[in-house]
Amino acid sequence: MTILIKNANEVITLKSNIQGPRTKEQMREIAVVENGSVLIEADHIVAVGALDQLEVDFPDLVKKAETIDASGKIVMPGLVDCHTHLVHGGTREQEFNMRLNGSTYMEIMNAGGGIHATTKRTRETSFEDLYEKTMQHLDVFLKHGVTTVEAKSGYGLDWETEKKQLEVAKQLQATHDIDVVSTFMGAHAVPRDYKGREDEFVDVVIKDMLPKVAELELAEFNDVFCEKGVFTPEQSQRILEAGKALGLTPKIHADEIEPYKGAELAAEVGAISAEHLLVASDEGIKKMAEAGTIAVLLPGTAFFLRAPFARGRLMIDEGVPVAISTDFNPGSSPTMSLPFIMNLACMHMGMTLEEVLTATTINAAYALNRGEQIGSLEADKKADVVILDVANYKQLQYFYGMNHTHTVIKNGQVVVQNGILLKDQ
Amino acid sequence: MTILIKNANEVITLKSNIQGPRTKEQMREIAVVENGSVLIEADHIVAVGALDQLEVDFPDLVKKAETIDASGKIVMPGLVDCHTHLVHGGTREQEFNMRLNGSTYMEIMNAGGGIHATTKRTRETSFEDLYEKTMQHLDVFLKHGVTTVEAKSGYGLDWETEKKQLEVAKQLQATHDIDVVSTFMGAHAVPRDYKGREDEFVDVVIKDMLPKVAELELAEFNDVFCEKGVFTPEQSQRILEAGKALGLTPKIHADEIEPYKGAELAAEVGAISAEHLLVASDEGIKKMAEAGTIAVLLPGTAFFLRAPFARGRLMIDEGVPVAISTDFNPGSSPTMSLPFIMNLACMHMGMTLEEVLTATTINAAYALNRGEQIGSLEADKKADVVILDVANYKQLQYFYGMNHTHTVIKNGQVVVQNGILLKDQ
Ligand SMILES: [Zn+2]
Ligand SMILES: [Zn+2]
Repeated sequence: MTILIKNANEVITLKSNIQGPRTKEQMREIAVVENGSVLIEADHIVAVGALDQLEVDFPDLVKKAETIDASGKIVMPGLVDCHTHLVHGGTREQEFNMRLNGSTYMEIMNAGGGIHATTKRTRETSFEDLYEKTMQHLDVFLKHGVTTVEAKSGYGLDWETEKKQLEVAKQLQATHDIDVVSTFMGAHAVPRDYKGREDEFVDVVIKDMLPKVAELELAEFNDVFCEKGVFTPEQSQRILEAGKALGLTPKIHADEIEPYKGAELAAEVGAISAEHLLVASDEGIKKMAEAGTIAVLLPGTAFFLRAPFARGRLMIDEGVPVAISTDFNPGSSPTMSLPFIMNLACMHMGMTLEEVLTATTINAAYALNRGEQIGSLEADKKADVVILDVANYKQLQYFYGMNHTHTVIKNGQVVVQNGILLKDQ
Repeated sequence: MTILIKNANEVITLKSNIQGPRTKEQMREIAVVENGSVLIEADHIVAVGALDQLEVDFPDLVKKAETIDASGKIVMPGLVDCHTHLVHGGTREQEFNMRLNGSTYMEIMNAGGGIHATTKRTRETSFEDLYEKTMQHLDVFLKHGVTTVEAKSGYGLDWETEKKQLEVAKQLQATHDIDVVSTFMGAHAVPRDYKGREDEFVDVVIKDMLPKVAELELAEFNDVFCEKGVFTPEQSQRILEAGKALGLTPKIHADEIEPYKGAELAAEVGAISAEHLLVASDEGIKKMAEAGTIAVLLPGTAFFLRAPFARGRLMIDEGVPVAISTDFNPGSSPTMSLPFIMNLACMHMGMTLEEVLTATTINAAYALNRGEQIGSLEADKKADVVILDVANYKQLQYFYGMNHTHTVIKNGQVVVQNGILLKDQ
């Protein structure tokens, strides 16, 4: 299959000679081609540029291509949502409603809410039901222009359920159009029956679970919730180093609620990314910049919990490569709209329109170790392309609170047209 | 045409014996029918209830009806967006971008931004182009579940352009599925050439424009921007009283930026609604409650301008009937998503999930003097009905930042299906 997208008002290519995630002013260089075209063959991009040039360089391909007219619209790389807790049982709108009505954290916990509610539901839900539910969620992500999603385990806290979550993600990677990238996060919380014996649970994660994850090839990344009252920096480090020894790249939920030197640890342990960072210290931010650790910021979680936002502006100015993501999960961020999260990053983290585009494409791709394959529109990269129904990229954030996704091309195939899934048409 | 919607998890009817807009605890009584059905004939609702009962009461209609299966979904009245500046020329994303990058108000004005930029563009844009642009916007509103939209003039500030805006709205009321309700707002700003001669412009509005609006039947409502540096309470009152004498119901943009006793004036002049109210005084809120003036709150504008939100919670507690709306306009609220505005009202104005539903249906309908025809699902009301792809109404705000509209029925006709316009399929 050969596709030619033409007449786009703007093609946001994010093309660059830079290797690795973008920092500082590089995050504002999104390499726009005006009145641009994109030529796609099979599953990859052949070229991006002016139509005249493509006709000269690739006359046969242009001639046989199926044409998509993007007049009045813009084209950009498929969005990469690099931090989600995709596979989980149940929903927690009841708890959200209690919170809106003024219930305290303890009242919600006593009413059976909180993370353990999701753990319980995830344990009880069958593989088939989890698979079906997650499939529907992926459909929604796709309609929002997302072509790659990370999926963390961590609602099992026992091997059987962690394995089930990871296997659901693995099977969806095989069957769904979206690429699903798995992260093992056995240390997402301390299971109730290990309360007061946290080190014992850390041993279970390290000695029992991690080797099986590696052996069964169920994940590429290893994540841990480093937070006061959950896992200490020392415990987190043990878990991340153990994963590294098995070939799992470290990620870390750091400095979300209380400063805990999580950003510092991320830099020290060589994590590919540190997530949340709402209360990361100045020192931690400096260390991340030096180490090149990607900050994965999740402004939706701050919005939904009415917490202060991470200091995205400062991090970029200090040289940290920033990515942003939905944090999709049933407790603190139940949205599947990365476009809306992009609005929040502009409105509440002081990021520019250009930085937000970099943060959800190429930098997010690097946070998943896929910066060489996806995240920009360049020759030989995967043909993950979105056409948006706005006249220029500034309108993506200006017409706020809306999903402008018109067409999604995944692996060179049109999968969303006029905002709806082709398989639903 | 006869339609039977059946198997809905919940039908949010908002049925009540109360006449007039809902206040206090009435705003939380949304009258949910579980596992409910809605029977529609021609352009009106015949009945809402359990399927068994409808089969007993209306056997012939049920038999001949086209059935829509709403399993797993919820049904509610079409949304009413009761405050928009729908008809306008141009967009102002450049100015938004300047603001994000730290430009001051004066820098933006000097670069040709602000309301006068829109006035200029609206004057320059032909009737046909304005009509076409607005038609496309209405399509987007419809996809977000909105079946009635208010449209204010006020980007002309001269009779020719005000008339053009109102005539575009009037023609769209005739041709588009959405009902468009017109408000004249000649006193939206002081035209540049009347600077320092504000009273003279007020005379133009009163003596020249208002009589023509009434004579040509171009609007039902008369609105004014009562704000320090724009129109004083005295000038506003003159304009609103003059409109009243011509049969135009008063509305008022009040207390948006500086407290200016706009809420008090709204109550005094018998306005059907006062809008914005970000800095309305305690005294003004009390007076509105006594007079029954509807507060039309616009949290999207606060979000977009990063201003403090109106005190929605307090207003409801004090007995003011509250409606919420997008304020769709190119300067301070360029969104066409009332569903997202509902999210904001929960997150930032302390409103409950139930209050937000009342505020965008029956109370918004009363703010447009249409509370007897639309805004709830009851026998003999207009068949403006939305089916949403969530399992219960709490999920509408829980799955935030997303548009859950699946099917829209307007005047008894299916116009949106699976999230897209039938005319586009
Ligand atoms: Zn997370
Ligand atoms: Zn307004």
